[in-house]
Amino acid sequence: MEHLPHATGGCVYIVGAGPGDPGLLTTKGARFLSEADVVFYDDLLDPRLLELAPGTCERVYAGHRGGRPADSTRRQDELNQQLVEAARAGRRVVRLKGGDPYVFGRGGEEAIALRDAGIPFEVVPGVSAAMAVPAYAGIPLTHRGLSQTATLVTGHEDPEAAEVDWAALAKLGGTLVIFMGSRNAGAIAKALVAGGRQAETPAAAIQWGTRPQQHTLLATLGTLEDTMSEAELRSPVLMVVGDVVEQREALEWFEGRSLFGRRVLITRSREQSRPLRLMLEAEGGEVFELPLLHLTGPENPAPLETALSELEHYGWVVFTSPNAVRFFFDPLQESGRDARALG
Amino acid sequence: MEHLPHATGGCVYIVGAGPGDPGLLTTKGARFLSEADVVFYDDLLDPRLLELAPGTCERVYAGHRGGRPADSTRRQDELNQQLVEAARAGRRVVRLKGGDPYVFGRGGEEAIALRDAGIPFEVVPGVSAAMAVPAYAGIPLTHRGLSQTATLVTGHEDPEAAEVDWAALAKLGGTLVIFMGSRNAGAIAKALVAGGRQAETPAAAIQWGTRPQQHTLLATLGTLEDTMSEAELRSPVLMVVGDVVEQREALEWFEGRSLFGRRVLITRSREQSRPLRLMLEAEGGEVFELPLLHLTGPENPAPLETALSELEHYGWVVFTSPNAVRFFFDPLQESGRDARALG
Repeated sequence: MEHLPHATGGCVYIVGAGPGDPGLLTTKGARFLSEADVVFYDDLLDPRLLELAPGTCERVYAGHRGGRPADSTRRQDELNQQLVEAARAGRRVVRLKGGDPYVFGRGGEEAIALRDAGIPFEVVPGVSAAMAVPAYAGIPLTHRGLSQTATLVTGHEDPEAAEVDWAALAKLGGTLVIFMGSRNAGAIAKALVAGGRQAETPAAAIQWGTRPQQHTLLATLGTLEDTMSEAELRSPVLMVVGDVVEQREALEWFEGRSLFGRRVLITRSREQSRPLRLMLEAEGGEVFELPLLHLTGPENPAPLETALSELEHYGWVVFTSPNAVRFFFDPLQESGRDARALG
Repeated sequence: MEHLPHATGGCVYIVGAGPGDPGLLTTKGARFLSEADVVFYDDLLDPRLLELAPGTCERVYAGHRGGRPADSTRRQDELNQQLVEAARAGRRVVRLKGGDPYVFGRGGEEAIALRDAGIPFEVVPGVSAAMAVPAYAGIPLTHRGLSQTATLVTGHEDPEAAEVDWAALAKLGGTLVIFMGSRNAGAIAKALVAGGRQAETPAAAIQWGTRPQQHTLLATLGTLEDTMSEAELRSPVLMVVGDVVEQREALEWFEGRSLFGRRVLITRSREQSRPLRLMLEAEGGEVFELPLLHLTGPENPAPLETALSELEHYGWVVFTSPNAVRFFFDPLQESGRDARALG
């Protein structure tokens, strides 16, 4: 074993955390988190994701929203340096980023900094908001006969000044997924219409996608800005433009469920909570388990054993709970008998 | 509990399995699989994904590649009907699809069939090949200063006849991710160059992305067809076009590892295999665990206890393995002593 840099020195796992719903983290990402010495995490991540790291793991907040580009670049440089130093100290580092690290996430810049410093790294792609947020809103990105292309674009720069060719995007058609565009929604819609896209093209704005707070607005390119400002929709918002938006009427499954947006705490013993959890989750509830009950057999089994051996002398056996039934029949069956012993 | 359709009747989970590496399945997808009564699975899925379903779960092969569009549509209708019938029989159905269900996956058609039949369904987005395959090849989809857009497009139709406006795509620039385009690679490249994209634009073709067999070819739009046909690259292939492809030189981390493409079987006891597994995986090995060793203490603890109680009478204690050290010191420490007892 002459050369095992990952194992003997530190390394960095650049992990995509998915768009919000913690269930959309990959199993590989979850495993690297569970083995991390330190995790650098972004803004807007579900706190339950960080609970996957060991108790001893150091948690470093690395995210920020807004700010001037100059600040943003300086902070990114500082973070890159922190990642390098943690790995040089021999630690297993997880860099946990929202969505997918290589989609508008500056993951490439972090990876280049690591490579320049000679730090081994691995990329764990994540579920991108580009797919998941529309899916939770009932909108497929592509659909036969409706759309054969999907373009992901960042809308955080004013279309007048941006590098993005909005006229070419308008000409292309298909599905358009716009990240970070809520402030420029009006200017973006105007640029697309000016480029030849119909003002009647369906559009959606989805806030807090995949989360219990998800909120979807339907509009057209012509009405998008007014609809969003009337609803006071603020970031995080993802916008979708294209005929696929009309599928929402048929395909919405998330926001319409009877427990959508409700949080439910289950205090039953963990082994008994599963059926209830499944039912609640199927109706859209966000379930937390906090078992306050731990079921065990009697500390002294002798009285029960005596009673079981003398069952024929009893006129009545009264069970006061389903658990009592279980703790009665388990030892009865272990003794080689069954319900017939009740006579 | 008047109305709990998911819990009391059947339901369908449309789950994205990710692009190949089974570690890219989401934790939510893994959980639904582990609770499935029946799973309908696509072509090209890693068999380890199906092992996540219970032993009693029925596994139905639902995928197919190629074939005429008419056949394809008929088979899709049959599959939709099977999904509906399984759910109507009260079963928990998982429809496991490669990548993300709503990206060139006909997931929308399946969901519409379920909705029309009144079957409750839920969509679990997956990691799309569009992001993960380039990431495993060292190519970020977007990168500051290089690309502010990424367009996903299917290349399975001849560009001459297709609905896709390749000229508009050429005009847009940015990153282009082409699914299922290996047969039409030459025609697609020509259409893009005809539309104004430089023949020198970097391009990559990635076969079996994210898997141990991953194979990446680098070319330009002008040389892509020849490069692919010389290497006899056949589907599954994903093509990426744009300046981001040049980042591969700096960001490649997967194919270059010393154990890339090797399968390793570990036969140590499971509890002892983890450090070895981590080292092998960090070097790109694909690790399977088959514990052929199970370590236990002595069946009769008396001789060891006697020896431990008379340690002062021994001149030498010889350990023949690390396990012997553990099985010696554990009971010693339990008896309240430590290495000083060795005198």
